[in-house]
Amino acid sequence: MKLYDGGRAPNPRRVRIFLAEKGIEVPIEPVDMGALEHKSETLTRLNPLQRLPVLELDDGTVLTETVAICRYFEALHPEPALFGTGALGVATVEMWQRRVEMHLFYPIAQAFRHLHPAMKEWEVPQVAAWGEANKPKALEFLSYLDEALADRPFIAGEDYSIADITGLVSIDFMKLARLTVPDGLDHLMRWYHTVAGRPSARA
Amino acid sequence: MKLYDGGRAPNPRRVRIFLAEKGIEVPIEPVDMGALEHKSETLTRLNPLQRLPVLELDDGTVLTETVAICRYFEALHPEPALFGTGALGVATVEMWQRRVEMHLFYPIAQAFRHLHPAMKEWEVPQVAAWGEANKPKALEFLSYLDEALADRPFIAGEDYSIADITGLVSIDFMKLARLTVPDGLDHLMRWYHTVAGRPSARA
Repeated sequence: MKLYDGGRAPNPRRVRIFLAEKGIEVPIEPVDMGALEHKSETLTRLNPLQRLPVLELDDGTVLTETVAICRYFEALHPEPALFGTGALGVATVEMWQRRVEMHLFYPIAQAFRHLHPAMKEWEVPQVAAWGEANKPKALEFLSYLDEALADRPFIAGEDYSIADITGLVSIDFMKLARLTVPDGLDHLMRWYHTVAGRPSARA
Repeated sequence: MKLYDGGRAPNPRRVRIFLAEKGIEVPIEPVDMGALEHKSETLTRLNPLQRLPVLELDDGTVLTETVAICRYFEALHPEPALFGTGALGVATVEMWQRRVEMHLFYPIAQAFRHLHPAMKEWEVPQVAAWGEANKPKALEFLSYLDEALADRPFIAGEDYSIADITGLVSIDFMKLARLTVPDGLDHLMRWYHTVAGRPSARA
């Protein structure tokens, strides 16, 4: 198999961190998103939606979507479980993963894509008012997440999960969106330093 | 357990269709979203993010997020599998579920929330230019989905899955966003009539 990777972009990084936590090595094919290589003929044939990452299996089957690729590896290599275990555990990880995606990762991405000059050809049309509207949404969720982390080590509970990967990548993504974590969110920062200090965070 | 339901809103409907496909009956607590009851003290205590549906278990544990609630029931009642089976099957359903959510359901929701006068107090600020920008995104994905459905009965392959539920609810949601399916998408419409004709669609 081969993983078409997008370098510093946040979704490809989510998959690389996931693989590092699992201890799985997959051959990587770098794709230069800055040069719009993800819109090349080859990549468009693999994923008509022109997004990365893309996983191509040995028989030519193509999987796209960050979380779908992660689930594939979770099924092949169940340990350590990064999507939770048991009915309630699985549902709890999914709940927090979606909360972090929809209320943090997504608003940060919108602020970045609709306000950053470098995104002018990526997000057409850029709607500055929509970019601005997303900034307070992201910051509000950080306060909520800070409270949730007061009584547990990781976002979804006692164990590190894909929700922590999405959270870590979101916080690091804030810089590009010109957002900073407000002062006083001590539980959030304690969690951030823990997950950012794991070897997988360098993936 | 008890399911706090939001009537005609699309996410609560996704869960009701899912339960109907599984043949699971859950006590329903209706919540009048038109009267903003999902922002009441009781509901805010259950879900500080003030979204529906919310599942409250007998021990007081609360699960939110449509897909997390569905995954909980999938784990408790695996048959019929609506999230796929096997590593590749599970990943393929996740891939299509996310494609439909991000490129169809979400753009339709944005067009509705940012353009419909009734959403003025729900989406603050309404950004009309962003609502308009989402309409072509949704329509473009419908053409892509039409092609994908040319050689298979359901969105993720041979079997009905949660991706079909999200697709069906999205198409029905288009009316509120004042969008219509373009002519000539025959595979899409064949699929739509099949899934809309299942008894679960009335849930």
